[in-house]
Amino acid sequence: MERITIVGLGPLGTSVGLGLKKANLANAEIIGTSRERRNASNANKVGAVDRTYAGLGAAVNGANLVILDADMGETEDLLKTLGQRLEPGTVITDLGVMKSRVVEWAEQYVKEGVYFIPGRPLPKKPIANLEDADGDAFRDCRYCIVPPVSAPEAAVKTVVGLADALGAKPFFMDALEHDSFAAGTSYLPVVLSAALVTATTSSESWREMHRLVSTEWETVSRLASENPEDNHAISKANPELLAQWIDKLIAELQAYRAQIAEDGEDLLHVFIEAWEARARWEHGVVEDRAGPELPTSMQSMGAFLFGDRLMRRQREMSEREKARQWTYDRGGRR
Amino acid sequence: MERITIVGLGPLGTSVGLGLKKANLANAEIIGTSRERRNASNANKVGAVDRTYAGLGAAVNGANLVILDADMGETEDLLKTLGQRLEPGTVITDLGVMKSRVVEWAEQYVKEGVYFIPGRPLPKKPIANLEDADGDAFRDCRYCIVPPVSAPEAAVKTVVGLADALGAKPFFMDALEHDSFAAGTSYLPVVLSAALVTATTSSESWREMHRLVSTEWETVSRLASENPEDNHAISKANPELLAQWIDKLIAELQAYRAQIAEDGEDLLHVFIEAWEARARWEHGVVEDRAGPELPTSMQSMGAFLFGDRLMRRQREMSEREKARQWTYDRGGRR
Repeated sequence: MERITIVGLGPLGTSVGLGLKKANLANAEIIGTSRERRNASNANKVGAVDRTYAGLGAAVNGANLVILDADMGETEDLLKTLGQRLEPGTVITDLGVMKSRVVEWAEQYVKEGVYFIPGRPLPKKPIANLEDADGDAFRDCRYCIVPPVSAPEAAVKTVVGLADALGAKPFFMDALEHDSFAAGTSYLPVVLSAALVTATTSSESWREMHRLVSTEWETVSRLASENPEDNHAISKANPELLAQWIDKLIAELQAYRAQIAEDGEDLLHVFIEAWEARARWEHGVVEDRAGPELPTSMQSMGAFLFGDRLMRRQREMSEREKARQWTYDRGGRR
Repeated sequence: MERITIVGLGPLGTSVGLGLKKANLANAEIIGTSRERRNASNANKVGAVDRTYAGLGAAVNGANLVILDADMGETEDLLKTLGQRLEPGTVITDLGVMKSRVVEWAEQYVKEGVYFIPGRPLPKKPIANLEDADGDAFRDCRYCIVPPVSAPEAAVKTVVGLADALGAKPFFMDALEHDSFAAGTSYLPVVLSAALVTATTSSESWREMHRLVSTEWETVSRLASENPEDNHAISKANPELLAQWIDKLIAELQAYRAQIAEDGEDLLHVFIEAWEARARWEHGVVEDRAGPELPTSMQSMGAFLFGDRLMRRQREMSEREKARQWTYDRGGRR
């Protein structure tokens, strides 16, 4: 009998449990534990686990795979504790968004014979609350795995197997590379969103301005409404990488500003490029350094559809240009 | 018989027509005209107008109120043409997002006895396509009116009456004040969104990074997917005001960056402040310079509910803090 233990049972851990139960693994039992009674009873209620234990020791006893669903502070504590206590051969993985730090901790705290293989599933929709927990949350999604150089193949395969069981597509990355990407795409937008709120709401005129607030502000400021403690933790997870991204963004804003203030010729081009880059991402036709992922025929179909959309947009634009000329005639009713 | 003519019949103009038809004004007819045949036939089809004319002259003939639904370039052309041709006493208004420029044009082009009273309804949801047109789009929304100092009271009342008929709440603003607000809340987010896309997608690692893109990036970059020609036009509508806002935002980003890089003590506080400011906006409890808008009892109820939410959040945070300590015990099943 294989034993998989989920430590934490937050929204993500609960989703993993539900996904594993759904996968109907032969000869495996799913155990859960949480410091929060509410999370444990929820996991039992929704059937995310076969059973829960109040004690961490009891829950991980005899486990082949231990999955940590915890924030950074808890993860450090858990690696300290479990890294020494688990039986040789046990594999630990996590679900957190920052990888370099946990790799360092694993080197410090996890004894020989126990293997920590960090992971990060990337669900398509955010899973913020227990109610969002979903066994299909990772289906057809990316599952990023960051195997330490020293990790034995069998341990890596255990985590690949976890991703497979959840219907996710595993792929390997270096911890630092992963973290720089995460800083640019997950944390930079949070800082941006909060900075927009600070800049506008601290303005003298905000008390009147707030009545004019548009959907644009509403959209871009939305992340500032996330739990500020989480936003804070995120910013501190890898401050050097995030600061580099903020610098890059400030440089871009200065370039936009120069074009705007000086009535620069490139401004339309820059907006078109941004529009195009985002559309490529949306349509999944970003050229992949690691080689194409889609079968070639599908990829070129994507490019074709995308090109078509571009052409249509172009046509719409020039029609609008034409429609812009008004004449004052007394043409009849139509 | 009063005649109201809508020139343009885009999504916004069509919504105004639908709203006016719904208001069932006694003794009034709604006329429409558009350079785009599709827009005119749509307006007829959905019943946004009593009838359309192909010719601008025929459409505005005998009109008491002319409503312009046009972009900046078209609006200038229309003010040039209509400003000279309309009969004395006719009132013109627009629906555009920038006001200082149109006020200047009106002073230049509109002859004495014809009155241009700029306006800007602020629908709660974006109305981007003809399919989004909705007669209730402005109900209980703000309707910003920017009356020139010289405007006779009767002309201003005509536009206030339009706002009333649409179920919107009219309020008056100075053109420059309005435009600075609009630049900070409507255009700054667009530039921010595009700059995020440029900064991340132009990075060396984007070809791999795009596979890791999170919901955070998706949210904040969304405005870069709007029509780049519109985004460009928006940036040029009032470049000085927008450049000032970009400067303010860069200053805020630098402050966030300093806190992040130097492990500053204020960072959590700053995120909490941003969270609080946005929550106040979301719950409509921003203190209003122009005096309270809600009856006092309702306002304090709002503040009470909001305070409650803050307290609950505080409690959740400290519970989480407590839950963070893991011990390795062998406590039984629960």
